[in-house]
Amino acid sequence: MTRNIQTLEAQLARLGVPLRPHVKTCKSIEIARRMMASNSPGITVSTLAEAEYFFAHGIEDQLYAVGIAPGKLDRIARLYRNGLPLKLTLDNSGSARRVAEAAARLDCAFSLLLEIDADGQRGGFRPDDPGLLETAAELVDAGCHVLGVMTHMGASYDCRDAACLERAAEHERLAVVTAAERLRRAGFEAPVVSVGSTPTASFALNLDGVSEVRAGTHVFMDLVMAGLGVCRIGDIAISVLTEVIGYRPHAGEWLVDAGWMALSRDRGTASQDVDCGYGLVCSESGELIDDVIVRSTSQEHGILARRDGKATEPDRFEVGQRLRILPNHACATAAQHGGYWLVGEDLSAGRFWPRMHGW
Amino acid sequence: MTRNIQTLEAQLARLGVPLRPHVKTCKSIEIARRMMASNSPGITVSTLAEAEYFFAHGIEDQLYAVGIAPGKLDRIARLYRNGLPLKLTLDNSGSARRVAEAAARLDCAFSLLLEIDADGQRGGFRPDDPGLLETAAELVDAGCHVLGVMTHMGASYDCRDAACLERAAEHERLAVVTAAERLRRAGFEAPVVSVGSTPTASFALNLDGVSEVRAGTHVFMDLVMAGLGVCRIGDIAISVLTEVIGYRPHAGEWLVDAGWMALSRDRGTASQDVDCGYGLVCSESGELIDDVIVRSTSQEHGILARRDGKATEPDRFEVGQRLRILPNHACATAAQHGGYWLVGEDLSAGRFWPRMHGW
Repeated sequence: MTRNIQTLEAQLARLGVPLRPHVKTCKSIEIARRMMASNSPGITVSTLAEAEYFFAHGIEDQLYAVGIAPGKLDRIARLYRNGLPLKLTLDNSGSARRVAEAAARLDCAFSLLLEIDADGQRGGFRPDDPGLLETAAELVDAGCHVLGVMTHMGASYDCRDAACLERAAEHERLAVVTAAERLRRAGFEAPVVSVGSTPTASFALNLDGVSEVRAGTHVFMDLVMAGLGVCRIGDIAISVLTEVIGYRPHAGEWLVDAGWMALSRDRGTASQDVDCGYGLVCSESGELIDDVIVRSTSQEHGILARRDGKATEPDRFEVGQRLRILPNHACATAAQHGGYWLVGEDLSAGRFWPRMHGW
Repeated sequence: MTRNIQTLEAQLARLGVPLRPHVKTCKSIEIARRMMASNSPGITVSTLAEAEYFFAHGIEDQLYAVGIAPGKLDRIARLYRNGLPLKLTLDNSGSARRVAEAAARLDCAFSLLLEIDADGQRGGFRPDDPGLLETAAELVDAGCHVLGVMTHMGASYDCRDAACLERAAEHERLAVVTAAERLRRAGFEAPVVSVGSTPTASFALNLDGVSEVRAGTHVFMDLVMAGLGVCRIGDIAISVLTEVIGYRPHAGEWLVDAGWMALSRDRGTASQDVDCGYGLVCSESGELIDDVIVRSTSQEHGILARRDGKATEPDRFEVGQRLRILPNHACATAAQHGGYWLVGEDLSAGRFWPRMHGW
């Protein structure tokens, strides 16, 4: 984990842009503090429960990176009054009217980033959308602060090689820089130009005009990231500890006590070149067992099978043996658990770090 | 929920077999108590944390229906000493040796059911497996109690019509009754003959020789069950409340603040005749919006799109509107939440019922 944090820190130091770590992956104050570099402006959150939890732990600069739901503005205004001026994301003109109404009703000057749609996959304004300037004006007229723009290049997850990821990072950069320049030409200051995803952050060659990068999965990495070439399998810093509970002699397969409840239903590698099933299998001490995957799961059962479909030998594992499963998607698998049991030589930082959950 | 409970109760009353409700779906004492009929022998659990939680709430007859992991036997022996003689499941001969060793080491006479493999999909002994009798003898020699047999017909989820589900239920029944008769001919009493899944429990025509039925999903039902014909969509008694956060004009799609964190990654209807995406969409008051599904999700975003791929009209929904999402798989979606907010006319039983979680 420490090495993963340092790798991205070094990459962004080369490009001269600070990291605003996304804590939706870890949801842990112990880990969030380690993800923040000395120049990090703050963190990125995905729920108001995260905002409240990390604020209670002293983090006062937070970007809530999900398009704002009007029904949440009363709760957000309470956070403002209590000293957390949460930066909000606004991804369509319809929401601007609702934010303006709430700003007046609650007497609260919300600070917002306008989300830019770089890849057509989620919400946001196209960089050349006339509505971008109209929306910024509407918000400023309502007494709100338009801090700038942000985007998330989800399409980077469809890449298959480094060249594609470099292009995705540049495409992401151009989308927000273009939008920010339009805002500035129209008289808005727009100091914040925020991009982010672990793949694009890792492969960006140039971040000119970008003021901060958001990434969170890099802290653990996972099989989807390895499939993209963003990390090696040996970099994956999170696993689910499990125990072998049985052998299926007619199928040559093994049962473990980690099903989808422990691993999550995420099948993110199914659309990649190497499908890892529900995860790859390691020994308890972390050595990869290369020919075996978690082929299927039910709620509390996992079935281990050879990748090539052949039967495993009846002495391959034994009942009671402990194994570790590397997850497809760290965010989804970690979310199934109440916290992290640390492994390593130095446990001075604790043995268990809890996670927060909920909304 | 109450109607779903009553429907299965009536079905099993006709067949003269009591329900041992599986609480892995609800993980709530309030709901488990309502699932237990006057003749229920107890409950079924899927984790030791469930066993401890429901025992703390006074439920003393529990079947732990996952093949036993030897590493859990110390914790289970503590439960026995504290007054919970948890019935265990043993699904292979390799585990029997480990249970026998632990019984001697811990001076604990474990009670066990032998799992029967009715469909080749998970663990268990084939009904005619010679190892069944040898394993029973080994356990009895170690001072343990072999209470009988159990099976779970996971293959019932592959059915497409009622006739298939009726055959699956009969196949499941025959597997355990055959195994129980073999045990009895060999001198084991084997009073417990346990079958179960919501589909087979709902479609069984005959349960002769079966002593109890396990089912849990029936309490909520879900889109997978509706796809199997086990319930109607109107029977689904659980949903995720969400809010519209934006419109994607170029795609004619809508964003809501329920992503896979709230809905789970379960795509159980993907292999059924009608793929419901990540869920079906209802109004806040529960009327089905028939032509729209949750097409895709990211962690905290859901995208609503028409089933037929056409664009929705820009006035179809509005930002701030509340909707409900019906889940593919109730067990998986409920697991993403800390509890249940009750809706209905009578809230005398409370407004919020918490769920337990963990292992």
